[in-house]
Amino acid sequence: MREQTPIVISSAANPEIKALRALDSKKGRSEQNAFVSEGLRHVVEAVRKGWRVRRLVLSESAGSSPLLQEAADGCRRGGGRILTVTDELMTRIARRDNAQSVIAVIEQRWAGLDAVRAEPGTTWLALEGVRDPGNLGSIIRSADAFSVAGIMLIGHTVDPYSTEAVRASMGSIVNVPLVRIDEAAYLQWYTRWSGRIVGTHLKATGRPESVTRGAPTLLLMGNEQSGLTDRIAASCTDLVRIPMREGADSLNLAAATAIMLYAIAAPADA
Amino acid sequence: MREQTPIVISSAANPEIKALRALDSKKGRSEQNAFVSEGLRHVVEAVRKGWRVRRLVLSESAGSSPLLQEAADGCRRGGGRILTVTDELMTRIARRDNAQSVIAVIEQRWAGLDAVRAEPGTTWLALEGVRDPGNLGSIIRSADAFSVAGIMLIGHTVDPYSTEAVRASMGSIVNVPLVRIDEAAYLQWYTRWSGRIVGTHLKATGRPESVTRGAPTLLLMGNEQSGLTDRIAASCTDLVRIPMREGADSLNLAAATAIMLYAIAAPADA
Repeated sequence: MREQTPIVISSAANPEIKALRALDSKKGRSEQNAFVSEGLRHVVEAVRKGWRVRRLVLSESAGSSPLLQEAADGCRRGGGRILTVTDELMTRIARRDNAQSVIAVIEQRWAGLDAVRAEPGTTWLALEGVRDPGNLGSIIRSADAFSVAGIMLIGHTVDPYSTEAVRASMGSIVNVPLVRIDEAAYLQWYTRWSGRIVGTHLKATGRPESVTRGAPTLLLMGNEQSGLTDRIAASCTDLVRIPMREGADSLNLAAATAIMLYAIAAPADA
Repeated sequence: MREQTPIVISSAANPEIKALRALDSKKGRSEQNAFVSEGLRHVVEAVRKGWRVRRLVLSESAGSSPLLQEAADGCRRGGGRILTVTDELMTRIARRDNAQSVIAVIEQRWAGLDAVRAEPGTTWLALEGVRDPGNLGSIIRSADAFSVAGIMLIGHTVDPYSTEAVRASMGSIVNVPLVRIDEAAYLQWYTRWSGRIVGTHLKATGRPESVTRGAPTLLLMGNEQSGLTDRIAASCTDLVRIPMREGADSLNLAAATAIMLYAIAAPADA
């Protein structure tokens, strides 16, 4: 393959850069069915997991390395293109100091409901109406760490492919299958789920670790402000409560989800 | 007491408003030794816990209620003043939509090192170099939920009284004593701590719940990127590891801290 001297893009008005920046909005991500991932390590991880990298954007000073070569090869193999931009433009694109020198535009993936299978030892996570992208990213990271099979997003939730959520996931976004479902569809679907459905409720008495391990489990977590709606909570086979001091009534959603996943899904022998 | 018709402030150039907005910066907070708390519920909680409210800022449309009266009484009792601002100015001050209609300027409090006492059943938390205000706020909230006696901030950490950290603490900032200490002072101090010092380390083999409960415990958590430095980690009596899938190496700091506190400090009988 003939290596061409790359054209270095310096203008934010370049159509490629405009398309990239359109991914800052949910509308743009939805129209392009893509998202932005920052940092070489995360891009290489995506390539290794078979995600389609449509654009690999490098700053002029990115240099070269075996990892960068792997990312570039992966991008080309999937029919993607490599763009080189000035360092100054990269800083503007990344919209923060300490800009990463590698940014990728990656095709979104959504798993179908048929992926949610109640297999032995499997934990799925379902989030109802989560609002904060930082929380969702942190939850995706925890789900990855505790080998969750995937995450169902019920109802109106923040976009997991938003740049803030992807950042907070620290690369875990490419390891955790995502399923979208509206409330009505969930309420039909759950009757066919043969495993446990575990929710948290302030009035429950069981502790998280009282849930029998090994059975297929769907962990349901509610919205930051209001928790699970009654309609969704009614689908639970087990309601538990994270023990707290008297008078305390809540934890941050990502913190509570981490505790629940630790209690029901952390490897027993690690 | 004669109630005066309040003067309604409409200009951001008003000296009181300028002083309030200076609290957006660490420098301003440090100079004034104060911080901003938003929302009536959180301000009332601060008053009840004896925090000194220097300014209570109400929007014109705040109306009146027993809780608002309690906040106003608490503010006046401590020598504070009540300011009324136009709704439009309140929105500008709060710098977000859905602005709270009550904002308070509260005097900072820092506990001395003598407050860190190894009493039976007590858990203290120490954070080395935490960087993200949202993480710190979420950790303060978890510490409150699990009855942590207080938090030591070791070395250069983000300001717990930053507006973002205070918001993320969801009011818990007034329930958790804070101690500042530099690394050298910590390294001298810890030899006098008679309880356990528990840290997390990727190479440790013990699980978090292997730590004997009931003994006074200091839980040490490191920085988001690099964890505990070797110098600080050397102070630990117990190193444990949160079990994760093979290959996974990290959780969000606030998530990891929540899991550790759950494992070592959650009430056993709740």
